[in-house]
Amino acid sequence: MAEKYICPGFKAAGVAAGIKKNGKKDLGLIVSDAPAAVAGLFTRNIVQAAPVVLDRQRVAGGICRAVIVNSGNANCCNGEQGMRDALAMTALAAEGLGVPEDQVLVASTGVIGAPLPVEKIRESVPMLIASLSAEGMLDCATAIMTTDTVPKVVTRQGELDGKPFTVTGMIKGAGMIRPDMATMLCFIMTDAKAEPEFLKQTLLRSANLSFNRATIDGDTSTNDTVLVMANGVSGAVVRGAEDENVFQSLLDDVCLSLTRAMVRDGEGVNTLVELRVVGAFSNEDALRIADTVAHSPLVKTAIFGRDANWGRIMGATGRAGVDFDPEKIAILFDDVKVVEGGRGCGADAEARAARVMQQPEIILTIDLNMGSGSAVMLTCDFSVDYVKINADYRS
Amino acid sequence: MAEKYICPGFKAAGVAAGIKKNGKKDLGLIVSDAPAAVAGLFTRNIVQAAPVVLDRQRVAGGICRAVIVNSGNANCCNGEQGMRDALAMTALAAEGLGVPEDQVLVASTGVIGAPLPVEKIRESVPMLIASLSAEGMLDCATAIMTTDTVPKVVTRQGELDGKPFTVTGMIKGAGMIRPDMATMLCFIMTDAKAEPEFLKQTLLRSANLSFNRATIDGDTSTNDTVLVMANGVSGAVVRGAEDENVFQSLLDDVCLSLTRAMVRDGEGVNTLVELRVVGAFSNEDALRIADTVAHSPLVKTAIFGRDANWGRIMGATGRAGVDFDPEKIAILFDDVKVVEGGRGCGADAEARAARVMQQPEIILTIDLNMGSGSAVMLTCDFSVDYVKINADYRS
Repeated sequence: MAEKYICPGFKAAGVAAGIKKNGKKDLGLIVSDAPAAVAGLFTRNIVQAAPVVLDRQRVAGGICRAVIVNSGNANCCNGEQGMRDALAMTALAAEGLGVPEDQVLVASTGVIGAPLPVEKIRESVPMLIASLSAEGMLDCATAIMTTDTVPKVVTRQGELDGKPFTVTGMIKGAGMIRPDMATMLCFIMTDAKAEPEFLKQTLLRSANLSFNRATIDGDTSTNDTVLVMANGVSGAVVRGAEDENVFQSLLDDVCLSLTRAMVRDGEGVNTLVELRVVGAFSNEDALRIADTVAHSPLVKTAIFGRDANWGRIMGATGRAGVDFDPEKIAILFDDVKVVEGGRGCGADAEARAARVMQQPEIILTIDLNMGSGSAVMLTCDFSVDYVKINADYRS
Repeated sequence: MAEKYICPGFKAAGVAAGIKKNGKKDLGLIVSDAPAAVAGLFTRNIVQAAPVVLDRQRVAGGICRAVIVNSGNANCCNGEQGMRDALAMTALAAEGLGVPEDQVLVASTGVIGAPLPVEKIRESVPMLIASLSAEGMLDCATAIMTTDTVPKVVTRQGELDGKPFTVTGMIKGAGMIRPDMATMLCFIMTDAKAEPEFLKQTLLRSANLSFNRATIDGDTSTNDTVLVMANGVSGAVVRGAEDENVFQSLLDDVCLSLTRAMVRDGEGVNTLVELRVVGAFSNEDALRIADTVAHSPLVKTAIFGRDANWGRIMGATGRAGVDFDPEKIAILFDDVKVVEGGRGCGADAEARAARVMQQPEIILTIDLNMGSGSAVMLTCDFSVDYVKINADYRS
């Protein structure tokens, strides 16, 4: 199983450094055999963790050799000490690997406002480096988990001018997720060769179809980071529009697959909902409605209750600030229509919809029947476990 | 106890008509002895229930004799039948009371999309009218409850030019509450005399300090209605600026007290949080931050966990779309400072804050230390019971 997560020219590792109280893996490392072009997307939250501030600076250089990352502590709101600690993490990795310090990036995730236990990291870096391997992706993906229940890695192959290449990504999410740029930690590797500026534009486009269209609880974190690294060891080179399209669609696929995996593994999530709003006057209108419905606690708790409670969907649609005719609206769960012309289709339709809602993944369609604007968003149910997880998280 | 909820010149009643499956009171009536000036505020949701549509028209006439209201069914998304049923409710009340039909208002609350059982209402109206009394306020307040756990009535006395007058209000809330105009059912009576236009302006100002500053779950309903009726039987008349101020402040008091009672009795609520954002560049900035923090599921679940998790408050503040310096921020629970200059005040402060959070009502202050803009909002914790209530509501 593990070899399917290889990305040629990259090694990874994950170990337990004792940052998490429960003794689980909490320190990860990704290393590229060759200097890799790099691009990043970061949280738009005004409050930004030290590693985010540092990475923003270093990504501007365009070259990355390694990413060191810890879970269990966000290294955020720690003042100047936070930046010293973030720098120390990259220095430890750079020294151990023999690469330039300013080509090492860093990410942290976990509790905000607790000092980073740098000594534990210092003690564990030699072991971390010693355990680097091409097969280490899952270990690293495990080390970045917080309330995630499974490590999430996706890999895809493509071809550029006859030369095969790979894109592999790992993600952690679970909470503090909403459709803003780069809402989680995500590290994507490819053995194709591409320029940093191209990577950045490509990543932005992919993010707008994936990370920026997903919500778990509507909160954004102070640490959100997406990095993409391209080391070119495959010999496949992105050159010209056709190659760019090939690369873009493979990256889209990886980002969307990671996003779906992340929402599926969201805190307390039982049901992944692909929310499709169609028939709006404009795509903007459709997105606004999708955003409102996707975040509605009443809709999300009804989905948890596996109740095709379309009245709540009507209510949330109606408060999105978008003009529409409530008497034209249709609502479907998968292909079961529960509302047509703004009125319920009866108990029989609702019973069939309730059966659809037993599935782990459902498609909820809101058709305004007004125009041709549309939007897709990924959301999920809002469960008792979500509340329990987040009420107990620090204790 | 009951007489403290009297408003001279008004009678009320509440009975069980069998609309609710559990046999509880579900049909209420408020009657004014004399024609009352009336003003109303209604939901801004695009999807509006039939009674809301009808009341908007009738309130424009400025005179009201009675309000008939049911719980257990929202009479929303029922097409033309919905309007016929809303009209039927007012006709039944008008006929029984011998008052003009177009001076009778109507409100409904409950499940969306189920036909209103008008026959049950028809059978119960005679009993409803027979049980009208000055002491019936609590019965009526009970009949409008949905997931509310207690009836909520507030009464206050004032004086206009030496003449005493009373303002009495009842409210139901519990779910689908956010800071938009008129987010619940609320009926306010006064025996003072005032013009409909003055009532409307006064109600708007009071709402902006109370109903529009409260959130339980961020959803608005299709049925939100606030009515204020002034029948003048006390002989106290609002005349001139000084009287207007007296009346306004009494109405403010009633509206804010009702709002606090409503949030306190919100679905699954354990903690009422008065959220104060101060030190912002502008009141608008402060309100935007208050709105974001007040709706953050991560903040609200932390409050449920009685955890002074200020990192989440920082995170929510930072995503409000408002510019500020994270290194100037201070956060307090009551008078316990947990963050100063953007950094935590240590375990000791957090332990004291955790004790504050055991209280049923707390004040959470976010001080940006930038300017003099401020805003206050009422919010609450997000509990396991909220999810359970809303997952099970229809079943």
